Amino acid sequence: MSKKLTTTKRIRVRFNEVDSLGIVWHGHFVKYLEDGREDFGAKHGLTYLDFKANNFAIPVVKCDINYKIAVQYGDEVDVETTYHDTTAAKLVFNYRLFNIRTGELLATAKTIQVFTSFTRELSYVEPAFFTEWRKKVGLIE
Amino acid sequence: MSKKLTTTKRIRVRFNEVDSLGIVWHGHFVKYLEDGREDFGAKHGLTYLDFKANNFAIPVVKCDINYKIAVQYGDEVDVETTYHDTTAAKLVFNYRLFNIRTGELLATAKTIQVFTSFTRELSYVEPAFFTEWRKKVGLIE
Amino acid sequence: MSKKLTTTKRIRVRFNEVDSLGIVWHGHFVKYLEDGREDFGAKHGLTYLDFKANNFAIPVVKCDINYKIAVQYGDEVDVETTYHDTTAAKLVFNYRLFNIRTGELLATAKTIQVFTSFTRELSYVEPAFFTEWRKKVGLIE
Amino acid sequence: MSKKLTTTKRIRVRFNEVDSLGIVWHGHFVKYLEDGREDFGAKHGLTYLDFKANNFAIPVVKCDINYKIAVQYGDEVDVETTYHDTTAAKLVFNYRLFNIRTGELLATAKTIQVFTSFTRELSYVEPAFFTEWRKKVGLIE
Repeated sequence: MSKKLTTTKRIRVRFNEVDSLGIVWHGHFVKYLEDGREDFGAKHGLTYLDFKANNFAIPVVKCDINYKIAVQYGDEVDVETTYHDTTAAKLVFNYRLFNIRTGELLATAKTIQVFTSFTRELSYVEPAFFTEWRKKVGLIE
Repeated sequence: MSKKLTTTKRIRVRFNEVDSLGIVWHGHFVKYLEDGREDFGAKHGLTYLDFKANNFAIPVVKCDINYKIAVQYGDEVDVETTYHDTTAAKLVFNYRLFNIRTGELLATAKTIQVFTSFTRELSYVEPAFFTEWRKKVGLIE
Repeated sequence: MSKKLTTTKRIRVRFNEVDSLGIVWHGHFVKYLEDGREDFGAKHGLTYLDFKANNFAIPVVKCDINYKIAVQYGDEVDVETTYHDTTAAKLVFNYRLFNIRTGELLATAKTIQVFTSFTRELSYVEPAFFTEWRKKVGLIE
Repeated sequence: MSKKLTTTKRIRVRFNEVDSLGIVWHGHFVKYLEDGREDFGAKHGLTYLDFKANNFAIPVVKCDINYKIAVQYGDEVDVETTYHDTTAAKLVFNYRLFNIRTGELLATAKTIQVFTSFTRELSYVEPAFFTEWRKKVGLIE
């Protein structure tokens, strides 16, 4: 049974993210997910820069977002980012976004990233430093 | 057997859409899909403004993107947008994005939109003007 | 001699804001200025929503930015926003952006906003509630 | 008396560029200027990639925008980009943006770029290939 690694990042909806209907344009949620993922990385020692230092890029190969309820200018949003451990050479995160003011679940999402070199060759096995990370945070022994 | 409505919109990758790895940041694809969808609307008489004139908004409730190959600054991309007819009160589009220079399939995607009032009440049946549109373009009789 | 109203908002450079040269794309600074301005508004009771409640919009009519030094992914930036009081019916802010890690001044900027109705008629005198605000914060007697 | 080099790029306002007031958010104009500049470069042989091939980056050090009239979703905009020749080691462009539907001048703008190496050392003289370009297009003899 795997340990659950989750972080929560609070963000505030910017004026420039709201469309003519008065709600956040759906495309901006991709940034919110990245905010959540970067916050996860900062808290758990797994940032883009950690991957870069080990000569790996982690391009997103899948991004699925389900929008439940619209969110407005002035609202604050909690981006809950949960790491999903897998034996495949992939980095999988699930997300739940909540409106702080109303408590509503705004959206759920999932991203999948792969490991590549900086010349974009796909790595079919996970990087050694990433296996070390999984041990360090208690996901594997 | 349903008629297939497809349009293709050519776009050029902007300098400001490319990240530090020299490739388009994945979040910008949501704009590319909207470019494709707006082009579809313009060609087939089904724009945001048509919906607005009939007092309907069409918020995106699902956006799934699968990224196959990275695309670089200076490249041109064809966004192929295909309307998927459904009996549910939804607007469904499938997308395929191609790199013009290489012919490669860059990404596939799917969006689902629903019909709401401007005060965000969901419509459980499709708007009458939309049924008219489906007739006009030959999707139903 | 006028009182100086200044706030400082710390932001973190996002991965998606960095271009292929590894530095923040210059256009994103407009968002940083808005972050600074919104933070000023939140702290001093002068937000878009306050203007909206009084039936005023405050469109930006001038935005000048001078870039001194590039800033990278992972860096944090302090956006120092200073209100510049004027007898003209305008809202003027000056900005200085600093790199926290290096202490460097990254950029200076200035924005001017005017007061309009929601049907975009320009107001040649400042709104009464705004004069009240200037009194309340001690800019005028 | 210097020759005037001008190009005009037509763009269409995107749904996601319009804010809650129903007009294009001012920050998006920076993209429009870049669209104009890239179009100028493509037509006159002076793109980012040309500079890159000669080991020069051309960071923007100044961007001033004056907004005259708001522009709405669905409108088309002509970005008129005019190269301003200078003996300083700088790349200067002036812009005028017009609403095609109304003929109105929407905004004027100016950008200044400098020549740097890819490790960001400023070049105090203009690159030789750029002097060649100025000759080729008839700006100098």
